[in-house]
Amino acid sequence: MSQPLATCDIEIRVRYAEVDAMGYLHHARYFVYFEMGRTELLRLCGIRYRDMEERQLFYVVARLDCRYRSPARYDDLLTLTTTTTRLTPFRVDHNYALRRDGRLVAEASSVLALVGRDGHPTRLPDDLYAQLGGVAAEAIGD
Amino acid sequence: MSQPLATCDIEIRVRYAEVDAMGYLHHARYFVYFEMGRTELLRLCGIRYRDMEERQLFYVVARLDCRYRSPARYDDLLTLTTTTTRLTPFRVDHNYALRRDGRLVAEASSVLALVGRDGHPTRLPDDLYAQLGGVAAEAIGD
Amino acid sequence: MSQPLATCDIEIRVRYAEVDAMGYLHHARYFVYFEMGRTELLRLCGIRYRDMEERQLFYVVARLDCRYRSPARYDDLLTLTTTTTRLTPFRVDHNYALRRDGRLVAEASSVLALVGRDGHPTRLPDDLYAQLGGVAAEAIGD
Amino acid sequence: MSQPLATCDIEIRVRYAEVDAMGYLHHARYFVYFEMGRTELLRLCGIRYRDMEERQLFYVVARLDCRYRSPARYDDLLTLTTTTTRLTPFRVDHNYALRRDGRLVAEASSVLALVGRDGHPTRLPDDLYAQLGGVAAEAIGD
Repeated sequence: MSQPLATCDIEIRVRYAEVDAMGYLHHARYFVYFEMGRTELLRLCGIRYRDMEERQLFYVVARLDCRYRSPARYDDLLTLTTTTTRLTPFRVDHNYALRRDGRLVAEASSVLALVGRDGHPTRLPDDLYAQLGGVAAEAIGD
Repeated sequence: MSQPLATCDIEIRVRYAEVDAMGYLHHARYFVYFEMGRTELLRLCGIRYRDMEERQLFYVVARLDCRYRSPARYDDLLTLTTTTTRLTPFRVDHNYALRRDGRLVAEASSVLALVGRDGHPTRLPDDLYAQLGGVAAEAIGD
Repeated sequence: MSQPLATCDIEIRVRYAEVDAMGYLHHARYFVYFEMGRTELLRLCGIRYRDMEERQLFYVVARLDCRYRSPARYDDLLTLTTTTTRLTPFRVDHNYALRRDGRLVAEASSVLALVGRDGHPTRLPDDLYAQLGGVAAEAIGD
Repeated sequence: MSQPLATCDIEIRVRYAEVDAMGYLHHARYFVYFEMGRTELLRLCGIRYRDMEERQLFYVVARLDCRYRSPARYDDLLTLTTTTTRLTPFRVDHNYALRRDGRLVAEASSVLALVGRDGHPTRLPDDLYAQLGGVAAEAIGD
């Protein structure tokens, strides 16, 4: 059985410094928003990513995919939905949906790998894995 | 027959402001590099993107995909290869390969749509289409 | 008599993409925060800067000064106080104080000039000037 | 007697992602350019800033001042002149002049303090101090 491990919504107001000469949110900034979504999703699970880094655990982006549906503009108030779709002790996958007034602005997905300070793959400690919902996910049968 | 329409290499030195707390080039900045690659590829075809915008022609990103292979760090000198893989009067596809000393740092692809000032799809004028190699591509049989 | 024309506080959480290899908020990002402060200060006066731009009125930065007092880090929750210190129909001056838990992170000031779409200086229309508090300021005797 | 300790010119092409909705180089990006100027000025003195950081020596910005003279636009090719104006074992001051076709775009100055990994002030080792020209500067009578 497959179900989302965790999901959260955050609101983000588009900054002036984030739009381009067309007045649209620049396509590279979306990924900064998605990163904010992941930070808040972790916080919802009781984990501060900053504390993970102090434990020498770093999530690095291995893959990103984004489809842009309609432009966002300066001062637009957007809602970002971030969802964990898969979790193992070594990687985590997310989906993202960015909307303005319910209308889809962009959809994206990412794969992150866990590495140590040296950049080599490492295993998520059991306490964090449980907090992120991995134990339940495995029990459910993933 | 299918062959690259145009390709170009540029060198980019990673700026201090572009790396993150791990000391790695932040994953969102790669897309700024790819955009630089497109600007130079156009220039190689005799087109300044800035002049296109003055003619009210704008390429907007419809889709991006990036796979991160190995990290880049501050002050690294990278080589970006940008290749047009498909061109029609309404869209253009590119591939990107970012390398450091020959080693692959990231691979990516993008789809761009041509729009007018109003954001609606528009057709690339014949002169620009010819310059970008679209005529040759069609003649070849795409 | 001299008194602040308007002031407002906003909270800003430091994003991962905004810190540098030391883990500190990069010094250039502070100015993006100050710009957010100005946007919210205008909103408090009943003006959306976006609407000003649609009326072809643009505030461009003529001068910036910033003193960095103590570093901010990823995930820090900061409070930015933005204050208008001087307003004329052609320019506006602001002061900024950025704090974390009451401790000063940075102090700054800016001078902005009002220009039209062509980049030439222009005069703030009476309605906006009144909304921003300019009339009161002159009556007080500036 | 007072004379510049070191100076260098670099060329920078304005990126699309660096301009704002007016089509002008965003005021916060200038500081990223100035930082690039400092990196190249150090390199000219035979020092890679990256190597300094590996020795746990970090220059942090203590003060910035910038006056914007005329706008720069996407694809403009700018020349940045970076000059060391003062050097002590604990701090370094720079001036910056950014030009397009000889015309001044911006003038700026900065003060940087040297700190260790812990963020506390530290002293520049003698070898680096000599390389940066500090010994000569003192001999000249600063």
